[in-house]
Amino acid sequence: MPTYKAPITDVEFLLNDVLKLEGYNTLGSFSDATPDLVSAIVAEAGKFAEEVMQPLNQIGDEEGCGFDNGKVTTPKGFDQAYRQFVENGWGGLSADREYGGQGLPQVIGAIVNEFASSANMAFAMYPGLTHGAYTAIFKHGSDEQKATYLPKLVTGEWSGTMNLTESHCGTDLGLMRTKAQVQEDGSYKITGTKIFISAGEHDLTENIIHLVLARIEGAVDGIKGISLFVVPRNIIAENGTVGENNNVSCGAVEEKMGIHGNSTCVMNYDGATGWLVGEEHKGMRAMFTMMNEARLGVGIQGLAASEVAYQNAVEYAKDRLQGRSLTGAKFPDKPADPIIVHPDIRRTLLNIKSFNEAARAFILWSAIKADVARWGEDEEARTAADDHMELLMPVIKGVLTDTGFQNTVAAQQVFGGHGYIRESGMEQFVRDARIAMIYEGANGVQALDLVGRKLPRHGGRALMGFFKEIDENLARIKDNKELDFVHGPLKKGREDLEKATMWFMSNGMSNPDNAGAGSTDYMHLFGLVVLGLMWLQMAESAQEKLDLSKGNTDFMKNKIITAHHFMQRLMPETAAHLARIESGADTMMSMASEAF
Amino acid sequence: MPTYKAPITDVEFLLNDVLKLEGYNTLGSFSDATPDLVSAIVAEAGKFAEEVMQPLNQIGDEEGCGFDNGKVTTPKGFDQAYRQFVENGWGGLSADREYGGQGLPQVIGAIVNEFASSANMAFAMYPGLTHGAYTAIFKHGSDEQKATYLPKLVTGEWSGTMNLTESHCGTDLGLMRTKAQVQEDGSYKITGTKIFISAGEHDLTENIIHLVLARIEGAVDGIKGISLFVVPRNIIAENGTVGENNNVSCGAVEEKMGIHGNSTCVMNYDGATGWLVGEEHKGMRAMFTMMNEARLGVGIQGLAASEVAYQNAVEYAKDRLQGRSLTGAKFPDKPADPIIVHPDIRRTLLNIKSFNEAARAFILWSAIKADVARWGEDEEARTAADDHMELLMPVIKGVLTDTGFQNTVAAQQVFGGHGYIRESGMEQFVRDARIAMIYEGANGVQALDLVGRKLPRHGGRALMGFFKEIDENLARIKDNKELDFVHGPLKKGREDLEKATMWFMSNGMSNPDNAGAGSTDYMHLFGLVVLGLMWLQMAESAQEKLDLSKGNTDFMKNKIITAHHFMQRLMPETAAHLARIESGADTMMSMASEAF
Repeated sequence: MPTYKAPITDVEFLLNDVLKLEGYNTLGSFSDATPDLVSAIVAEAGKFAEEVMQPLNQIGDEEGCGFDNGKVTTPKGFDQAYRQFVENGWGGLSADREYGGQGLPQVIGAIVNEFASSANMAFAMYPGLTHGAYTAIFKHGSDEQKATYLPKLVTGEWSGTMNLTESHCGTDLGLMRTKAQVQEDGSYKITGTKIFISAGEHDLTENIIHLVLARIEGAVDGIKGISLFVVPRNIIAENGTVGENNNVSCGAVEEKMGIHGNSTCVMNYDGATGWLVGEEHKGMRAMFTMMNEARLGVGIQGLAASEVAYQNAVEYAKDRLQGRSLTGAKFPDKPADPIIVHPDIRRTLLNIKSFNEAARAFILWSAIKADVARWGEDEEARTAADDHMELLMPVIKGVLTDTGFQNTVAAQQVFGGHGYIRESGMEQFVRDARIAMIYEGANGVQALDLVGRKLPRHGGRALMGFFKEIDENLARIKDNKELDFVHGPLKKGREDLEKATMWFMSNGMSNPDNAGAGSTDYMHLFGLVVLGLMWLQMAESAQEKLDLSKGNTDFMKNKIITAHHFMQRLMPETAAHLARIESGADTMMSMASEAF
Repeated sequence: MPTYKAPITDVEFLLNDVLKLEGYNTLGSFSDATPDLVSAIVAEAGKFAEEVMQPLNQIGDEEGCGFDNGKVTTPKGFDQAYRQFVENGWGGLSADREYGGQGLPQVIGAIVNEFASSANMAFAMYPGLTHGAYTAIFKHGSDEQKATYLPKLVTGEWSGTMNLTESHCGTDLGLMRTKAQVQEDGSYKITGTKIFISAGEHDLTENIIHLVLARIEGAVDGIKGISLFVVPRNIIAENGTVGENNNVSCGAVEEKMGIHGNSTCVMNYDGATGWLVGEEHKGMRAMFTMMNEARLGVGIQGLAASEVAYQNAVEYAKDRLQGRSLTGAKFPDKPADPIIVHPDIRRTLLNIKSFNEAARAFILWSAIKADVARWGEDEEARTAADDHMELLMPVIKGVLTDTGFQNTVAAQQVFGGHGYIRESGMEQFVRDARIAMIYEGANGVQALDLVGRKLPRHGGRALMGFFKEIDENLARIKDNKELDFVHGPLKKGREDLEKATMWFMSNGMSNPDNAGAGSTDYMHLFGLVVLGLMWLQMAESAQEKLDLSKGNTDFMKNKIITAHHFMQRLMPETAAHLARIESGADTMMSMASEAF
C-alpha cells in the first residue's frame, strides 16, 4: 500500500531560508502570516493530507464515481472527509476575510494544495475548483454576486466548476455553441452541452455553482462573442436558501484513465438561468483569471504526483533486496543488497528529487509573486510580479506536469513488475498524473502561449526582467568557488535560452511556424533554466548555513548534493532543446498531411 | 474507436529495397522465402491482425480475464480468434519443418509479430510465449522432449510459458526458492510459487507447457544452482493424450495497469512432475535462449504500440478542427483548420514516425541476423551475426520499449481531453505499452547487461564490429551531397558513442559505479546511433529510387523528409546522453541512503 509524508522540512527551508517569507510581512495578507502561524498551518495541513485524504486515494480509484439517472455519488468516505475538510476551514485559507476566509497569502494555499494533491489528487480537485470559481467571482463579479456566492464557496458548503469545453471545441473556444438569451430581468437563459466538467455533479455539497462560457444571442462569431455566466445548479432564494433545480443536469460521467474519484461530467444546460459575470463579450478575460489560478494548481498537481511517487519509490528501493552493489556487497549478512545501492536506481531517484525540490521552490516563489501582484508596495513591484506570473504560468503548467508525469513513470519503474500491479498504487499515480498534461490547456498550447503571447507581451518586458533577475543571481555567486558547480551549468543554460529567444526573433516573425515548431522545446528549456535558478538559490542558502554550521547540516549537505545532480544530469538537456529549436519548421511543414 | 492498418508498404520497402532479403536466398530457411511468398504472407498477416485481432483489443481490456477457483477465462472472442489463429498456422511460421512448422526465416515471424502486437498486444502474447517455449525446448531439450512437446506447440494446440519470478526475486534469480527433488525415474518433483506468469493459466488450449526455473535439492546457492524444467500442466500419456492435472494450479490472476486480456498468474507447483531441460545447474543458459527471443518480442511490442498509437493520432489530427494555422487559415471554408496544420502537432507525429520506421528497420535487420546466426555460410558470418544479436538485444528491448511507451503518451496527447477518455482507446495503448519497459528484464537491467556484459564480451569484438559497420556506411555516403543531412549528425552521434565508450573504459574499470551511473544513458545513446544508421540506409535506398525515378516517388520523398526530421530532432540527444555519462557516479553515490 502506498504511503505519503508531507515534505514539511523542505517547505520550511524554502519559506524561511530561501524565499525568506518574513521579508514580506509589511504586505497585506502577509502581515498575519507569522512564522509560528505558518508552521502550525503547514504541519496541520500535512497531517490532514496524510491521515484523512491519503487513505481514501486507492479506494477512490477502485470505486470511482457512481452515476444513476443524473445523480452522481462520490467514492466511499469522500463525503465524510469533505465535511472534515470544510469544518477545519481548509477551503478558505487564502480567501478574503470579507467573505469569511482567513485572508492568508496564496503561497500558504499553494503548500496546502501540494500536500492535498499528493495525498489524493481526485479528492483535492473538488475544493480546488471551488477556489477557482471563488477567484473568478471575487475578481469579476458584481457586489451582489459576491455577497450571494462567495461566503458559501469559502465555507465549502457550495462547490464551484469551470465550464469551457464542448465536444467539438476545446482549445479553440471560438467554436463554442452554448448560447445565452437575455431575459427581461437582466438574467440569461443558458442552453447547451459542456463536456469534461470536473466535479460537475457530485454529492458533497448542497449546491454547485457553475461558471459557464456561452455566446449571447447575436454576439459576433469567435472568441470575441463569448461571455461568462454564473449558473447555480439550484436556484438560490433571496434569503439564501437553496431551492429547486435550475434546469442543469449531468448527462453522464466519463470513463477515463485516472482520477476516478473525481466526477468528470457531461453537463446539460436546458434554459438554465444564469447571470453575467463581468462585461458582455469579455468572458475570456474573466475565464483567464480562473485559468491562471487553475494552471498554477495543475502545475502543483504535477509536482504533487512526482513527490508521492518518489517517496514510495524510495521506500521500495530501501526495502527491496535484489542483487549486489557493483563495488561489492554492502550488506553481506543479507541475502542481497537493497536496490538503492545501484547507481541506476540512485540516478532515477535523484532525477526526481532534484526536480521536485526545485519545482516546489518555483511554485512557492511564483505564489509569492501572485501575492505581491496584489499587495505589492508600489506599482513597479506589482507590475514586475504580474509580469512574472504571466510569463511563467505556462512554464509552471507545462513543464511541471510533463516532467511530473515522467517522474511517476520512472518511480513506477523502480518497483519492477510490482509497480505494474494495482495494489502497489504506483500505476495509479501514473494514470492520475497523466491528465495534468492535458487539462487547463494541453501542454502544447501552454508552449504556444509562452512563445506566441507571453514573450512578445509589452515588448518582451517580462522576459527581460527574468534575464535581469537570473543575471543578478549569477553575478552574486560568481566568485563563490563553492557554487562553481551551479554557476557554470546555469550560465550555459541561460545562454541557450537567450540563443533560442534570439533565434525566434530572427526566424519566428518571418515564419510563425518556426516559433510553433520550437515552442515545446523552448518551454522545457525555459523550465530547466528556472529550476536551475531555484537550485542556485537553494544551494546558496544551504551553503550559507553550512558555512555558519547552523541548522540541520545533513539536510543542507544533501541539498548541495541534489543541486549538483541537477546541474550534472538535468541541465545538459538545454543544449538539445536549443539544437531542436534551431532546426526550425521547414522539414516538418514540407510533408503533405496525407503522408503522415 | 481506435483503428489499425498493418504497415505493409513500409515492410515491403525494408525487405526489398533496404535489407534486400533476396540476397540471402542461398541460406537455409530463406531459400523458400521468395518475394512472392513473403508478400502473400505479410498481406495475410496484416489482414488477420486488422480483421480478427484488433476488434477484440478494447473488449479484452474492458473485460479482462476471469478467475474462479483456479479456472481462468479469457475475454469474450479470444477463444474463437485463437482457434482461427491456430487453424491458419500462424503459430508455426518460423518453426522447424521437422515439427510441423513452415521453416520460414525469423524475420517473417518478426513482421507478423509486430502486426499482431499492434492489433492486440494482450492476445498476441499467448502465441508469443508459446513460441518462446518452443525455442527453449528446440535448442536445449532432449530428442524425446522435442518429440513430445514441439509438434503441439507448433500447431498451437498447447501453449507455453516462462516461469522465472518469485515474489522476493525478479532480477536476482539467484534468490530463487522453488525446488526440484529428483525421483527414481529421473523426473523431478517441483515445488514452489511463481508470480507474474503471463498466460500461466487460460482456456485457449488443452494443455499448457510450463518452463520452470528451480533449484535441485543440494545445488549450490545463487544462480549457479538453478536448472530448467519442463512441467506440463496436465500429464501427457505415452500415446500423447492429455491426462490429469500435474499438481500445477493457478492461485490468482493479478489486477494490473494494462494487458488485461492476458492472464498474469500466480502459479503454484505442489510436487508437480517436471523433466530437466538441458544440463543440471545450467538453467540460466537455457533460459537466456528464451529470454533473448522474448526480448526481441518485447522490443517489437514497443514498436507495435508506438505504431498503432501513431496511426490513430494521425487520423485524429487530420479530422479534428481546432484553431487556425499560424500562417493563415488553410481551410477558410471550414470553421477551423485540422490540427495537423500546427507545427507542434507535426513535430509530435514526426518524432513518432521517424522513430517507428527506424525501429522497424532495426528489428528486421536484427531478425535477419538471428537467421544468419543459424544458417550463415561460414563461421565468420555466423559469429558476426551472433555478436550483433548479443550486443544489440538489450538495446532493442530497452530503447524500443522506453521510446515506444513515450510515443504512446505523445500520441495520446494529440487527442487532448478525448485521449484521456477510455473510449478513444489511446489510454489503453499507454497502459499496455507500459509493461514492456518492465518485463523480460527491466530496462535498467538491460542497460547494465549492455554495459557490464555485452560491451566487454570477447574483448569488445561485437562493439568493434558495430563501429566498423557504421564507418563503412558513413564512408559509402561521404561524398553523396544529397545525404549530407544524414552524414553529419550520424557521424556526430557515432563520435559521442565512441567517447562514451572510452569514458567507460577509463572510468568504469576503476569504479564500476561509473558504468552503472551511465548505463541507461549509454543504452539510449547507442539506440539513437543504431536508429540513425537505419535512417542512413533507408534514406540511401529512397534516394537511389528517386534518382532513378523508380517506384513510388512520393513514398520515397517522404522517407527523406522523415530521415531529415530524425537527424534534426532526435539525434541531438546523443550529446546530452554523453554529458550525463561523463558526469559519473560520484555525486549520486555520495548521498546516504536515508537522505533520499
